[in-house]
Amino acid sequence: MDGEKLTDIAQLGEFGLIDHLTKDIQLTQKSTVKGVGDDAAVLKTGGKKYTLVSTDLLIEGVHFDMTYTPLKHLGYKSAVVNFSDMAAMNGVPLQMVVALGISSKYSLEALEEFYGGIKKACDFYHVDFVGGDTSSSVHGLFISVTVIGEVEKDKITYRSGAKPGDILCVTGDLGGAYMGLLLLEREKKVFQANPDMQPDMAGKEYILERQLKPEARTDMVKKFREKGIVPTSMMDISDGLASEALHIAKSSGTGVVIYEDRIPIDPVTFDMAQTFSIVPTIAALNGGEDYELLFTVAQKDYDKIKDVPGVGVIGYITDASEGNRLVTPDNQIIELTAQGWDALKKR
Amino acid sequence: MDGEKLTDIAQLGEFGLIDHLTKDIQLTQKSTVKGVGDDAAVLKTGGKKYTLVSTDLLIEGVHFDMTYTPLKHLGYKSAVVNFSDMAAMNGVPLQMVVALGISSKYSLEALEEFYGGIKKACDFYHVDFVGGDTSSSVHGLFISVTVIGEVEKDKITYRSGAKPGDILCVTGDLGGAYMGLLLLEREKKVFQANPDMQPDMAGKEYILERQLKPEARTDMVKKFREKGIVPTSMMDISDGLASEALHIAKSSGTGVVIYEDRIPIDPVTFDMAQTFSIVPTIAALNGGEDYELLFTVAQKDYDKIKDVPGVGVIGYITDASEGNRLVTPDNQIIELTAQGWDALKKR
Repeated sequence: MDGEKLTDIAQLGEFGLIDHLTKDIQLTQKSTVKGVGDDAAVLKTGGKKYTLVSTDLLIEGVHFDMTYTPLKHLGYKSAVVNFSDMAAMNGVPLQMVVALGISSKYSLEALEEFYGGIKKACDFYHVDFVGGDTSSSVHGLFISVTVIGEVEKDKITYRSGAKPGDILCVTGDLGGAYMGLLLLEREKKVFQANPDMQPDMAGKEYILERQLKPEARTDMVKKFREKGIVPTSMMDISDGLASEALHIAKSSGTGVVIYEDRIPIDPVTFDMAQTFSIVPTIAALNGGEDYELLFTVAQKDYDKIKDVPGVGVIGYITDASEGNRLVTPDNQIIELTAQGWDALKKR
Repeated sequence: MDGEKLTDIAQLGEFGLIDHLTKDIQLTQKSTVKGVGDDAAVLKTGGKKYTLVSTDLLIEGVHFDMTYTPLKHLGYKSAVVNFSDMAAMNGVPLQMVVALGISSKYSLEALEEFYGGIKKACDFYHVDFVGGDTSSSVHGLFISVTVIGEVEKDKITYRSGAKPGDILCVTGDLGGAYMGLLLLEREKKVFQANPDMQPDMAGKEYILERQLKPEARTDMVKKFREKGIVPTSMMDISDGLASEALHIAKSSGTGVVIYEDRIPIDPVTFDMAQTFSIVPTIAALNGGEDYELLFTVAQKDYDKIKDVPGVGVIGYITDASEGNRLVTPDNQIIELTAQGWDALKKR
């Protein structure tokens, strides 16, 4: 492995890396419906529903900073980000397993806090904690969560089902989690420079909660059932709106148009972005970890979706030949690109 | 979290820690058949079979040493140790997901090697790689593998089903993986002291392979079907024979007797143990990572199991009041205790 021309993995980015490493993998089990490439793997286990499986890794110093992350929140978030993957398939989470690597700096009481957060998430989302593996680590805390869920076979929603003419929708508001992160990072620096300074978080609770204690939109999956809607494509927004919209377009073989002035942004997010001299829509387009749902519906479902509380229509799907476009408030059309939220670029 | 009486997690050990942290967890999903406490969680997904889920974490510097672990072998082993958990439930692995944390010292080519090993294991065991998560880590390589499998409902085998009078059996031979590890550690020290020395591994290939490239005994699961046997209890041997036998006895509410001279040991393991001045059966009782199956069968199945190639009868199950006993070759009876192979004690 000490040859001359070794390739730095950061060059490929997370998605490129997974694509590259898994390109030769062939599926042979007839129970495998969908492997790598969506928010969850899809399995046919013999019942009326599909079984969903998703895994996520959270690493200290990369995905979270113990300076300002309460362990209970971290446990909650570790669970929720995986529940969100189930929602992204139009399904619900049912069970989870957790593998933890723990360095010696963590006490039993610290782990109890962490598991308290996991338990709270399990209670709230009606998910069973069914197993795990716990081991020491040399440095820091490593959390790997795998969630099992289910979805009715005729309701499953992939990234790849969008068709030209479909309407692009998003739940909730965007950019808040990223602004919460920037705020926490700023206050950390202030504290490091002067430990007597008290952090200035007043009025910013919303974006702090978006960062530290996100929720999965399984409520929206229920809402789709109530309204008789099956989205044509869906993802959860973990890497930023732009990145996810491009994923849907690429997977579906289409183009996408987003109207910048339709992107939903909370006033606290807006103010904080201005404080940091960031265009608020840029925070929404490129900031990650909001865990809202980005989805498309057929035009025939427009009347059903337009009045659902917490759903915003932000654009539409086009033919691939039209490319991926952002329409600015003054009607300029620019190419939609993603800086994304690539954990591999962070080091 | 900076109180005065924080508890060091090493005090509890891995099993104590998981028991402690998960003791309050309640199961609410009717699809959950069995949660924490066996080799895999058991789910009822609507089909004729149960779905099995198991997760394992492998951490650089704790579970493997990159000095002497080829990445391809590491990929293979990461997969196989989880396939072994499926065999331990009398089931078969079908799908796997892998979460990887990678420090910047790993090149793309190194990861290709690792995935090559995963792929080889998937091909050999007919398992589909269906998803993953890849991220950077600050230090070292973290591998979390989750495997999904299945088992016929009337064939599932828990740790807890042993009854007094049942016969205790083991597949293959034991202690080899541990002797392989000691050999690799010795040669590492020799190399560190004098980098010009060539490692002395001749004739030791068997124990090296036991350590670096173990196999899961899914073949034995097939054999049970052929012979019409359903074990009354089963585990895979990852922490050493003594530890696993005590797990079965505790879970089943029984006692256990093991005849020391019936413990199967390969000649290479035997010789290497003597070289290291270790009693060979002690290596088998307390050395981990053999990934053989330890199981019990009812007495009525004795005739069916006794002539199965690669299965050894090593003892029997008793009433709990008789305790857990090891019978030495000179017919002394001593209490069976486990040093185990506790990853949490290693730091």
